[in-house]
Amino acid sequence: MKVGIVGTSGYAGGELLRLLASHPQATVEYVASTSKVGEKVAEVLPAFQGVYDLVFEPVDAQAMARRCDVVFTATPHGVAMELAQELLDGGVVLIDIGSDFRFSDPQVYEAWYKQEHTRPQLAQEAVYGLVELFRHQVKEARLIANPGCYPTSALLALAPLAASGWIDLETVVVTSMSGVSGAGATPKPMYHFPHCVENVQAYGYPGHRHTPEIEQGLSRFLGKEVPPITFSPHLVPMSRGILTHVSARATVDIGPQDLVNHFTEFYKESPFVRVLAERLPDTKSVAGTNFCDLAPRLDHRARRIVVTSVIDNLVKGASGQAIQNMNVRFGLAETAGLWHPGFTP
Amino acid sequence: MKVGIVGTSGYAGGELLRLLASHPQATVEYVASTSKVGEKVAEVLPAFQGVYDLVFEPVDAQAMARRCDVVFTATPHGVAMELAQELLDGGVVLIDIGSDFRFSDPQVYEAWYKQEHTRPQLAQEAVYGLVELFRHQVKEARLIANPGCYPTSALLALAPLAASGWIDLETVVVTSMSGVSGAGATPKPMYHFPHCVENVQAYGYPGHRHTPEIEQGLSRFLGKEVPPITFSPHLVPMSRGILTHVSARATVDIGPQDLVNHFTEFYKESPFVRVLAERLPDTKSVAGTNFCDLAPRLDHRARRIVVTSVIDNLVKGASGQAIQNMNVRFGLAETAGLWHPGFTP
Amino acid sequence: MKVGIVGTSGYAGGELLRLLASHPQATVEYVASTSKVGEKVAEVLPAFQGVYDLVFEPVDAQAMARRCDVVFTATPHGVAMELAQELLDGGVVLIDIGSDFRFSDPQVYEAWYKQEHTRPQLAQEAVYGLVELFRHQVKEARLIANPGCYPTSALLALAPLAASGWIDLETVVVTSMSGVSGAGATPKPMYHFPHCVENVQAYGYPGHRHTPEIEQGLSRFLGKEVPPITFSPHLVPMSRGILTHVSARATVDIGPQDLVNHFTEFYKESPFVRVLAERLPDTKSVAGTNFCDLAPRLDHRARRIVVTSVIDNLVKGASGQAIQNMNVRFGLAETAGLWHPGFTP
Amino acid sequence: MKVGIVGTSGYAGGELLRLLASHPQATVEYVASTSKVGEKVAEVLPAFQGVYDLVFEPVDAQAMARRCDVVFTATPHGVAMELAQELLDGGVVLIDIGSDFRFSDPQVYEAWYKQEHTRPQLAQEAVYGLVELFRHQVKEARLIANPGCYPTSALLALAPLAASGWIDLETVVVTSMSGVSGAGATPKPMYHFPHCVENVQAYGYPGHRHTPEIEQGLSRFLGKEVPPITFSPHLVPMSRGILTHVSARATVDIGPQDLVNHFTEFYKESPFVRVLAERLPDTKSVAGTNFCDLAPRLDHRARRIVVTSVIDNLVKGASGQAIQNMNVRFGLAETAGLWHPGFTP
Repeated sequence: MKVGIVGTSGYAGGELLRLLASHPQATVEYVASTSKVGEKVAEVLPAFQGVYDLVFEPVDAQAMARRCDVVFTATPHGVAMELAQELLDGGVVLIDIGSDFRFSDPQVYEAWYKQEHTRPQLAQEAVYGLVELFRHQVKEARLIANPGCYPTSALLALAPLAASGWIDLETVVVTSMSGVSGAGATPKPMYHFPHCVENVQAYGYPGHRHTPEIEQGLSRFLGKEVPPITFSPHLVPMSRGILTHVSARATVDIGPQDLVNHFTEFYKESPFVRVLAERLPDTKSVAGTNFCDLAPRLDHRARRIVVTSVIDNLVKGASGQAIQNMNVRFGLAETAGLWHPGFTP
Repeated sequence: MKVGIVGTSGYAGGELLRLLASHPQATVEYVASTSKVGEKVAEVLPAFQGVYDLVFEPVDAQAMARRCDVVFTATPHGVAMELAQELLDGGVVLIDIGSDFRFSDPQVYEAWYKQEHTRPQLAQEAVYGLVELFRHQVKEARLIANPGCYPTSALLALAPLAASGWIDLETVVVTSMSGVSGAGATPKPMYHFPHCVENVQAYGYPGHRHTPEIEQGLSRFLGKEVPPITFSPHLVPMSRGILTHVSARATVDIGPQDLVNHFTEFYKESPFVRVLAERLPDTKSVAGTNFCDLAPRLDHRARRIVVTSVIDNLVKGASGQAIQNMNVRFGLAETAGLWHPGFTP
Repeated sequence: MKVGIVGTSGYAGGELLRLLASHPQATVEYVASTSKVGEKVAEVLPAFQGVYDLVFEPVDAQAMARRCDVVFTATPHGVAMELAQELLDGGVVLIDIGSDFRFSDPQVYEAWYKQEHTRPQLAQEAVYGLVELFRHQVKEARLIANPGCYPTSALLALAPLAASGWIDLETVVVTSMSGVSGAGATPKPMYHFPHCVENVQAYGYPGHRHTPEIEQGLSRFLGKEVPPITFSPHLVPMSRGILTHVSARATVDIGPQDLVNHFTEFYKESPFVRVLAERLPDTKSVAGTNFCDLAPRLDHRARRIVVTSVIDNLVKGASGQAIQNMNVRFGLAETAGLWHPGFTP
Repeated sequence: MKVGIVGTSGYAGGELLRLLASHPQATVEYVASTSKVGEKVAEVLPAFQGVYDLVFEPVDAQAMARRCDVVFTATPHGVAMELAQELLDGGVVLIDIGSDFRFSDPQVYEAWYKQEHTRPQLAQEAVYGLVELFRHQVKEARLIANPGCYPTSALLALAPLAASGWIDLETVVVTSMSGVSGAGATPKPMYHFPHCVENVQAYGYPGHRHTPEIEQGLSRFLGKEVPPITFSPHLVPMSRGILTHVSARATVDIGPQDLVNHFTEFYKESPFVRVLAERLPDTKSVAGTNFCDLAPRLDHRARRIVVTSVIDNLVKGASGQAIQNMNVRFGLAETAGLWHPGFTP
């Protein structure tokens, strides 16, 4: 497998390089950049000194299509949209880590991203690459929209509940805590170290852009429209990791073990989902990995189900999931290049 | 005002010393300890070198009552219970920063704290010292139960909503993120630096002990029993600060400005509550202070009200609030010794 | 005392506001800004909501001089230089927290700061405001150059050694670790949270601009030129605090207690210096305070003296020291407004 | 290669498991524990859920020797000493990550570790496993003493200087900053999160136990006794990483490029040492890797050479280096299982 990457100055691109360095069947063939053409990857990104011998090349869709089997775009929204048609015409599989192809309805995209969608047919064609829920579609796709980090953590918690019919979908509340790397590599006052350290910051709610992505993901999965949910993200003083807390009113009389059993069964074919029966999750247990740890719990006093979900936002929430999509699409082992233990401590 | 303190080896006790050092009308007269008797406070707690000249004295309720006007107990649960009667008999006002007197119903205490309550009459007498909601009772109290950190942040967010009748009390969900100092000064694996850093940890839910305290606080305030709520705390990698996210289904048709106006009006006599109309809160803006910043917001798509609340868990969530209680009880300015800007950055 | 401040968008300016809020004899009268004129201080700096009622005014040296007794400039280098003459002509005392007046020799300034010095006479006149070493000059000064953060920590460690003649001045090595707030409030890649956290970064050496300031400070104190020293700063993942490690070859046969005694005696009139006989320093013990904790130790195997010094870079290393200078200059208690215990934990 | 490990409850043991999970030629065969016998590794260490299927077995040297080619001991000092003879008699290669076999002279061990050495002959036989300096001895060894974390970072910086004769060995000063994971997994007040965060702590000097290890390493390498050095470690608020700053007076007239060239040449056969010509090191660039980044610099004003060295204390400073020793000893590629890019951000 020859891999091309557009956009390695951001964290998702760097993480692709980190993970692909130990993938047994994929080789990075083409690293495209607009601003660093001709510079060595290992000089721009010191962590890869001695690991990669690549040089940044121009963003040339035709050249990439010629030399690659798959291209990952890890770019700000609006960029992948412009490259997609040419890449697909050249016969590559395109996996977009950005948000351009996550919404099948371009009007939803335009309403939340305040930008015209120039490839509405591709948006409709794109498969939403949350492998655990849409594995069969991913296998056939030529254009895969890699899910956002918050939606990944929320949907993996919500899907088994929604499938079971055990919750009232009108009562879903999603509260997330994210490390700061989720905000990208561009310095801004809100991400300045002295401001972030010793600080939890609420931001972007109500109305964060990942809200409709969660709703659409759940609707696609259920095959019917779900009601609006409340989603509230927070920045916590760490680099990597997301913890998402999902709650909803229980509509049936079940016990705690029923919940754990149902989740275990639901994800029995999904190697990256670990259902915790005893302890509650923490983000460090998944740091650097493609795992999602889930703890479904019953708050019997309040007749509510609570599911806590943790991922590494740069791995399962971005680049690891993108590689998982590539693996599934190309018939490799789903875990190829991704079966690492986490970084602890 | 002569002040006595029992329990300064914990963080709440140290914070009392920090705050009282600049209180214009109160002097620390007696610092009691079981294990450090005879040692200098400034040697045990280096931050007070050059600031306090005190020596630890034995925990002697009669001596404390003789020499002090007010005694703060910052002790593990079960300790204040044993000292309370003798202190009160000696004529001091007792402000317990622990949990012994927070529940008027000793059975609730016993059910959640797994410990017999040996002073049920005092538990009934005690005033719940959340000044903003129970200011009049505090003025008359001889025994004040200082609220827990999570309940403080949750109740200040919930009370105006509950008072307005704008929410369905059956739908209240409370999710909190706390700095690690809230867990106290005793080292344990869960609070070991290499484990905590770069980690968000879910813990203690469903069923955290602050759940019934929130429910009881709201019930006392409303004068009627409220339904069980769902409360989920998380540890985030910082020392100080709590952010609490409260949500509930809106039952009326109001606009965002109505919410802000109502909260502003509700707290117009409460100098430590700041209602934010524009920005969302972050914990750093209240670090080191007795402020609670509140942002009430309307999620109109999901017909839900969300209130975000931040406090410094050791100040408004513990020792600052205790001093605020003292000020109100003794007719001092409510803000005496507490009117500091926060520590930023 | 009426105080004026130029430059509150940076951390040193904000810290002046924080500390002056509880100064018993000084009132902030004039807060000048170029970009925020007309805006409320409490809106631009949320930590001061409810604390200050001030509005930013233009940078007008004559107006400031009319209304203030003392003006603090907390501005990038080059700015205070332009304001100084007019302020001094207006009769105020000027305390510059920046670097414009730290070098009596303008050529040194120009060589290290790559900028022409437009007020060489004032540079010569200015008193170097390290109170512990130059208290008598400060008392008479109308223009005080507040020392840099690293030089403060290094000079307080070095001066007693140099004064004693117990070290070979040719062998002085200074290694420092600083919190990121020392780099200021402007976001840059090196200070971006995900880059800084879990990272120690060497930077700016050999040749950091604080090197000649340390050398000049020591030379002024000794009354003779000292040889060049080696100074190496590092950024550590915290917001506040500097730890400086100073070592030099011992030239005499002394014992560990001699060292501690000598330091204690040397600083006996200096309330903000605490000499530690037993434990080694940590920055948290001085966080938020104007203290400098010093631990002089003898490494008898290597015949070397090591002194470890800690300060809060924004307090003793900047704004606290500036207020200390004001106090001394105006005959107030040296500790007025600065006698707070630190923030722990 | 069949691998045995004694001591996985500490961080070095866990890190061995993490790194060996992707080693192409080694399999973990035997994980020994005193307290967890019969428990699943993946349950005790959640990061390995789904990765290892192992169960803890008793510490039985004969059984380990029978089933393993190499055994790693990651145990407190005194433990490996007791197991060594039996393991070696059983024919395995023993790599001790602890300190028991680092000193060829048992009297030095006893003086600094305050414990009798019960296997002085083995101490003499053991090879000091700093591969870059003692590669040939490692190839032949049956007992390898894996170096301490601080000595690794210091010796890789010092050896090229000492070899060149360009420094005065009487003037060597070593100052280190370490993440808290270096102190191990046992909670203590000094490593309690609220105490460590926002804190740099000096500790253990003069007289830290790694001092004689640095001196002995350099002496062994040079083949002659070096004078005592001054070594000062500090804890910084992060989990992983060490930055070591080494300085010494230059005795010759060289330029900055000479230094870089010499270091590059010196380490040309050492894949894990990266000599930085342009930028200064930071610990994040080596996090999770076996790299040591070195920046040798000339402070021409002070006629001093400064070398800054960074490693991940748990990888190159412990478990990665142990695997590197195994690779070299068994004729595998030196980089086998260790050629990963770092964790950024």
